[in-house]
Amino acid sequence: MTYELANYSSLPIALTMGDVAGIGPEIIVKSFMDAPDLMQGTFVVGDVAHMRRATHLMAENYEPKKYLPILEIDHATQAILTPPHCIPVLQAVAVGDDCVPFGGVSARAGSMALQCVAWAAKAALDGIVSAIVTAPLCKESMSISNEALAVFPGHTELLQHIAASYMKVDLQDMPVRMMLANDELRVILVSVHVSLKEAISLVTEDRIFTTIAIAHEALSHQLGRAPKIAVSGLNPHAGENGLFGREEIEIITPACSRAQALGWHVAGPYAPDTVFMRARKLIDNELAFDAVIAMYHDQGLIPVKYDAIDRGVNITLGLPLLRVSPDHGTAFDIAGTASADAGSFIHSVQQVKNIIHKRGKKCYE
Amino acid sequence: MTYELANYSSLPIALTMGDVAGIGPEIIVKSFMDAPDLMQGTFVVGDVAHMRRATHLMAENYEPKKYLPILEIDHATQAILTPPHCIPVLQAVAVGDDCVPFGGVSARAGSMALQCVAWAAKAALDGIVSAIVTAPLCKESMSISNEALAVFPGHTELLQHIAASYMKVDLQDMPVRMMLANDELRVILVSVHVSLKEAISLVTEDRIFTTIAIAHEALSHQLGRAPKIAVSGLNPHAGENGLFGREEIEIITPACSRAQALGWHVAGPYAPDTVFMRARKLIDNELAFDAVIAMYHDQGLIPVKYDAIDRGVNITLGLPLLRVSPDHGTAFDIAGTASADAGSFIHSVQQVKNIIHKRGKKCYE
Repeated sequence: MTYELANYSSLPIALTMGDVAGIGPEIIVKSFMDAPDLMQGTFVVGDVAHMRRATHLMAENYEPKKYLPILEIDHATQAILTPPHCIPVLQAVAVGDDCVPFGGVSARAGSMALQCVAWAAKAALDGIVSAIVTAPLCKESMSISNEALAVFPGHTELLQHIAASYMKVDLQDMPVRMMLANDELRVILVSVHVSLKEAISLVTEDRIFTTIAIAHEALSHQLGRAPKIAVSGLNPHAGENGLFGREEIEIITPACSRAQALGWHVAGPYAPDTVFMRARKLIDNELAFDAVIAMYHDQGLIPVKYDAIDRGVNITLGLPLLRVSPDHGTAFDIAGTASADAGSFIHSVQQVKNIIHKRGKKCYE
Repeated sequence: MTYELANYSSLPIALTMGDVAGIGPEIIVKSFMDAPDLMQGTFVVGDVAHMRRATHLMAENYEPKKYLPILEIDHATQAILTPPHCIPVLQAVAVGDDCVPFGGVSARAGSMALQCVAWAAKAALDGIVSAIVTAPLCKESMSISNEALAVFPGHTELLQHIAASYMKVDLQDMPVRMMLANDELRVILVSVHVSLKEAISLVTEDRIFTTIAIAHEALSHQLGRAPKIAVSGLNPHAGENGLFGREEIEIITPACSRAQALGWHVAGPYAPDTVFMRARKLIDNELAFDAVIAMYHDQGLIPVKYDAIDRGVNITLGLPLLRVSPDHGTAFDIAGTASADAGSFIHSVQQVKNIIHKRGKKCYE
């Protein structure tokens, strides 16, 4: 799990355009309008025509009604030299005759989204960009596209495959985990998109230990020191000494002990209904936890989203590249209306810049 | 589930003292010190000697160092006439020679705690008090006491048994549910203290429908109008159309439909990671939900506690009496130090007063 990353802070950051039938292009344009300084050094991996449609849309519908010019670039490094209030776009897909309509499943949109992610991942692995921020894509559109990579259901699987091929390792030797983060709380999930019943069966000592290990390594480099990690229990009150479930005793505690034996700052299992609140409350305090390991999707996502859905970002840990994404989907229902909130996308770019700023040259993610 | 309740707002409110080895007596005294106006009309069902120990403790250790006198009363109605800054206590247990030490399991403390709850429940059922607010007790201390009622593991089971016997109905005909509430969010739980695995098996159409029905009836009377109820899903993204679990399709949606067929304002199942945030965000808004039905303990308790652990209160729904309790335990580790936070106890009394104020004479709870 130790990889040399491209992480010079002078390298540009790639923004993949996402599904063009969704809100991706417009939240990118909104980010350039609302946070021009922050967006300096980033560029869009996408399609000039669709990005131009988004700038028109925003110029007509979003205050201040400003038309941001698109600057077509042909190499990532040109992004660094792009003046503010200008959106650099690298044409990463074949130029088409027209734009995909908003709000529906489309094989062409899926294909374009895929190609942008593949281009950006390769650029990150080659050390041409320091990180990628991915606008949302539509799984269904991707799956009906004719691309060879369409077999992968989402960003995470796709990036895992591209990175493992690039590094010439087996997929199973590159385990990844989803981290959700906002200003107050970082949560790393033991499992993601499976039923709750299946999530319980994935609560194994190895899987929890691997999750802790990935979190420990990634956060050590993001923070520049060993992180303090809290591990949540699975059952109410963390099982109350076996009274409401024995997973804490038989599985979670042994996983924590393995991590502690390595000298890592790992504590738990704690009662799920208070561990997030405690980690959050004290996050800038000596007693705080830097992150919480959550046993399943909603255990971790409920607290991250509760206060701050517009500030939550998703960071894929375990990859040999840094990938951050906003914590929302394509929002087909409002695509093309200029009403989507760019907050989470802006926070994603901010997170990337914070992480790049903090870490040294050699990095684990 | 329709009961005639004693709910005249002129009736006093009984406060059970809880386990005297825990923080119960001291948070009651602190409440009288910090919120004297709010505490008007309440009285302690307990033991004068232990309450006096708590007033001494607070006078010596808690600012402003004020010695609140204990007024021993022999009938609940005397509480109404008690002057402010005076704590009315009804001696509900046999007078002992000494006080139970702080911080440990004790059969005598368990026995006293039990007797106080039994007294207060009977008074509520008899229409002598309008409601009861219960300070925390220790399940282990109760279980080793010699009382016949020691077979019941906690407040809820105990009150359910006392009320069912009083009403001469079978226990199974008086289903109860736990509601957690703070200023922003009300959550009603389908199941409580069971393992997560067992909680999944309790997600049945009947159990969910009963939970909705209890919530609908109780909140109709607390709010004076039909409540808007959101029902959470069980799986990530509420199963995403069966992709990550089928409980939403096969169990939760049919339960919601049964409730909707009765004309109730019930919607869902919603994705668990956003339903609480949505219900909360809009709680004073026309589009808001008044409450969320949570499929298991931590799904509901994580959001209620995340922002506001000191403001959360626990209301038992389904009983023919109104019972509210703070959302914490006996805290043996800090008992006797005057450091316990009385916030949740004060909020419990406030909640009781709000509910009594709003509801009419005939009430469901």
